[in-house]
Amino acid sequence: MYQVNISQTVNELKELLDEERVSQNPTVLEQHSKDESYHTPSLPDVVVFPKKKEEVAAIMKLANQYEIPVVPFGIGSSLEGHVIPYEGGITIDFTLMNEILEIRENDLLVKVQPGVTRTQLNKALKQYGLFFPVDPGADATLGGMAATGASGTTSVKYGTMRDQVQDLEVVLADGTIIHTGSLAVKSSSGYHLTGLFVGSEGTLGCFTELTLKVYGIPEYMMAARAVFTTVEDAVNAVVAIRQTGIPVARVEFVDAHSIRAVNHFEQTDYPEKPTLFFEFHGNEAGLKEDVKFTREILEAFQCQEFIHETDNAKRNQLWKARHHMAYAFIHTYRNRKFMSTDVAVPISELAGAIGFGTNVLQDSGIPGGIVGHVGDGNFHICIMIDVNDPDDIARANKLNQEIVTYALSRGGTCTGEHGVGIGKKKYQEKEHGAALAVMRKIKEALDPKGILNPKKIF
Amino acid sequence: MYQVNISQTVNELKELLDEERVSQNPTVLEQHSKDESYHTPSLPDVVVFPKKKEEVAAIMKLANQYEIPVVPFGIGSSLEGHVIPYEGGITIDFTLMNEILEIRENDLLVKVQPGVTRTQLNKALKQYGLFFPVDPGADATLGGMAATGASGTTSVKYGTMRDQVQDLEVVLADGTIIHTGSLAVKSSSGYHLTGLFVGSEGTLGCFTELTLKVYGIPEYMMAARAVFTTVEDAVNAVVAIRQTGIPVARVEFVDAHSIRAVNHFEQTDYPEKPTLFFEFHGNEAGLKEDVKFTREILEAFQCQEFIHETDNAKRNQLWKARHHMAYAFIHTYRNRKFMSTDVAVPISELAGAIGFGTNVLQDSGIPGGIVGHVGDGNFHICIMIDVNDPDDIARANKLNQEIVTYALSRGGTCTGEHGVGIGKKKYQEKEHGAALAVMRKIKEALDPKGILNPKKIF
Ligand SMILES: Cc1cc2nc3c(=O)[nH]c(=O)nc-3n(C[C@H](O)[C@H](O)[C@H](O)COP(=O)(O)OP(=O)(O)OC[C@H]3O[C@@H](n4cnc5c(N)ncnc54)[C@H](O)[C@@H]3O)c2cc1C
Ligand SMILES: Cc1cc2nc3c(=O)[nH]c(=O)nc-3n(C[C@H](O)[C@H](O)[C@H](O)COP(=O)(O)OP(=O)(O)OC[C@H]3O[C@@H](n4cnc5c(N)ncnc54)[C@H](O)[C@@H]3O)c2cc1C
Repeated sequence: MYQVNISQTVNELKELLDEERVSQNPTVLEQHSKDESYHTPSLPDVVVFPKKKEEVAAIMKLANQYEIPVVPFGIGSSLEGHVIPYEGGITIDFTLMNEILEIRENDLLVKVQPGVTRTQLNKALKQYGLFFPVDPGADATLGGMAATGASGTTSVKYGTMRDQVQDLEVVLADGTIIHTGSLAVKSSSGYHLTGLFVGSEGTLGCFTELTLKVYGIPEYMMAARAVFTTVEDAVNAVVAIRQTGIPVARVEFVDAHSIRAVNHFEQTDYPEKPTLFFEFHGNEAGLKEDVKFTREILEAFQCQEFIHETDNAKRNQLWKARHHMAYAFIHTYRNRKFMSTDVAVPISELAGAIGFGTNVLQDSGIPGGIVGHVGDGNFHICIMIDVNDPDDIARANKLNQEIVTYALSRGGTCTGEHGVGIGKKKYQEKEHGAALAVMRKIKEALDPKGILNPKKIF
Repeated sequence: MYQVNISQTVNELKELLDEERVSQNPTVLEQHSKDESYHTPSLPDVVVFPKKKEEVAAIMKLANQYEIPVVPFGIGSSLEGHVIPYEGGITIDFTLMNEILEIRENDLLVKVQPGVTRTQLNKALKQYGLFFPVDPGADATLGGMAATGASGTTSVKYGTMRDQVQDLEVVLADGTIIHTGSLAVKSSSGYHLTGLFVGSEGTLGCFTELTLKVYGIPEYMMAARAVFTTVEDAVNAVVAIRQTGIPVARVEFVDAHSIRAVNHFEQTDYPEKPTLFFEFHGNEAGLKEDVKFTREILEAFQCQEFIHETDNAKRNQLWKARHHMAYAFIHTYRNRKFMSTDVAVPISELAGAIGFGTNVLQDSGIPGGIVGHVGDGNFHICIMIDVNDPDDIARANKLNQEIVTYALSRGGTCTGEHGVGIGKKKYQEKEHGAALAVMRKIKEALDPKGILNPKKIF
């Protein structure tokens, strides 16, 4: 239906923005046809690069009038086909809206445009002794991270994107501009729209400004690596540590397969066993006590090797196998595509789930390994698949299905942090039951013409 | 319209529940006509006491069919007229749904029915070495606390109700039962309905089960009290402490008026000056360092007296003036009603806001004092008003209006924790602007007949 208007729309878009910020260049279209996943690409009709919210509002008004699909786009690092424009239309690329608008040092708040990336923000914060904790592997935009409800290794202490977003400026489907929150740290005023929009994956509105919490860089940090004989011991040690309330800042699990891949790729000789990586943030005296206590717990779970460091360079060295895990796989299997499952389960179910995942991975015959934000009960089976081999795709889908089914049967979720996109749509009914109809009603109420990132989530 | 059906409805309700759990007893109606606030009471037509979700679903189906207003009711400790049935109808009292269903020790999660109170929960958790941190002054129900987005003195460390609720079982306006979350600590699956329903004040559904986060009782606790010459010094000391990242578990401000009221009522002799009350949770070595560092900061802000204690009884003794503040006012002015403002501002604006509040309180001529969850930028001007004196009511409303206007002009909120009810309705448009229409659309989508707690929030 909308196709009749697309060339007219492009002309109208060029009136709203400068000509060079409205692109139908094939390379640009191709860049916006995919994300970092194995999902099949599809081209948008046009890509626009707004510089301010008023332009975004004007674009949305136009799109709404002509019922043209709109896909908001950060840097396209998502993993479930989130930004692929399966119905064509307009892709709004936010990279030109990349200003850090305000650093409210005393309030531990920053105001940013959506195209600011997390490393860009952290660079700017450093001189204030502050940092932003959420760290998905990619150098994603903060708008994209808010839209997927991203998290990472530090979420066990600082929380996910959901916990950091204090206010969003959102351009709705009809071009209305709203703010979802305020600068007050807490509020019981009206419905919590911030909570609703974080994680909405571009289906409810475009974020044009974000107010985010930031934190003082800890006085003292300590990193540690602990090697175990079995997955169960490693994971159960984490359960025990969490229960004592020791405030771990990071705790990551890496399986033996992954360590082997790193050793192979990096020519290192880490013990090829289930390994935990820790980080602690706080004051020196407190941390020493925390680390001592942690070590005691680990030893009760047959920890074989425990190394800890405080010096910055040595800490990074200690964590290397964790940081290089995906990289090692990707570079070892250059003709294959990276795919990652993303279930999260209640932590009491984690050892069982990772054990099950290990078997499923083995059975699939696909190369890969398991890595986990184990403090949150979230882990990834990372596999390298040949996207041109339908059998490989089928095996990967089976593996994904099996681990999701397992997680849901234990009270977990199909996606702990990557989001639904198109890849996790098929599990929404099973996970949410009657609540899915409530989500649909909200979508229909806020985007009655269904123009915002169509075919995603639902 | 619905009145024609009310006696028929009562008969039908008696078929759904046992006869004795459907009450039109005048005392019962009167008990459900008010909350703990100064707002004018209004009677429900009937009060029902369900024991399980299926009964709640059946009640909602009936009410929806006949378009009868429904007010969910915890213990009625809210402060903005939340539970007053201004359109009569059915009040659902959740006190019989007061079972702790499951303590998932390893997951640090509990499943409770909505009528469980926070002290009831904490009593049950103690034997597991666990506790639930949110502590509004009253012994409220967890259903009510989730519905108002309650918080309290520990929110600076542990967060508000919003941060604790992991999953809600909700009976919607039409009787559908949904779950808003899962047992996984984090999730990016679908819209974050938990975030939307927490703080919805009974206007979107009835909570029939809550899954909440709980925490290990800290190994070590320390309490402290610090006395200052000026409000600015006290508040600015808190700003400085927050910025260093010292993990304070509680930090409360009490003004000189309030200390005077406590001294008068309790025959104590606390210095009648702006005072901060602290609590620290952690390990012994770490806390000692934190307290030492805190003290250094306080001294830089002309702290005149600093006392700290670790022993349980002595800690309570130290905090007495904070705990007894409201009590001292209420018992000194027995013929008056307690009223509390509830603004929150960004913490950089807090000293100014409390200074402004002090002047407004002085000008009003009404007895009262100021107390604040200053770590969150939230404070209350607590006043004792004569509800039979229209002039006093007018003065109280003026005071409230002035402090809300001040807070909103500084990026704050009209209510940090008490919620909107009817008392903060008039500020919603000003605070939320175009976002209010989004909230209305959500309300209409989920409760098209407008039967759930009508006239509240909007
Ligand atoms: C190697 C690798 C590791 C990863 N590890 C993690 C991890 O540990 N944790 C994690 O959470 N994720 C991880 N991811 C996934 C990805 O980084 C995150 O999903 C990230 O949040 C996406 O940000 P982006 O800027 O790339 O957004 P995009 O991919 O461009 O967009 C993502 C979604 O957000 C929407 N969107 C983007 N900008 C806006 C806006 N301004 N307004 C409204 N909607 C918008 C899009 O429409 C889309 O639905 C990883 C990805 C890779 C490639
Ligand atoms: C002395 C005093 C001090 C206080 N201090 C604080 C404080 O520090 N912080 C704070 O946050 N609050 C405070 N309050 C306010 C009050 O305690 C909170 O608002 C509390 O959350 C209300 O809980 P309740 O069980 O009394 O709920 P009610 O008052 O019975 O109900 C409150 C709201 O929740 C809804 N509701 C109740 N149960 C359900 C359910 N099962 N499903 C859906 N909706 C439901 C009601 O419809 C209503 O809108 C204080 C109150 C008093 C009297």
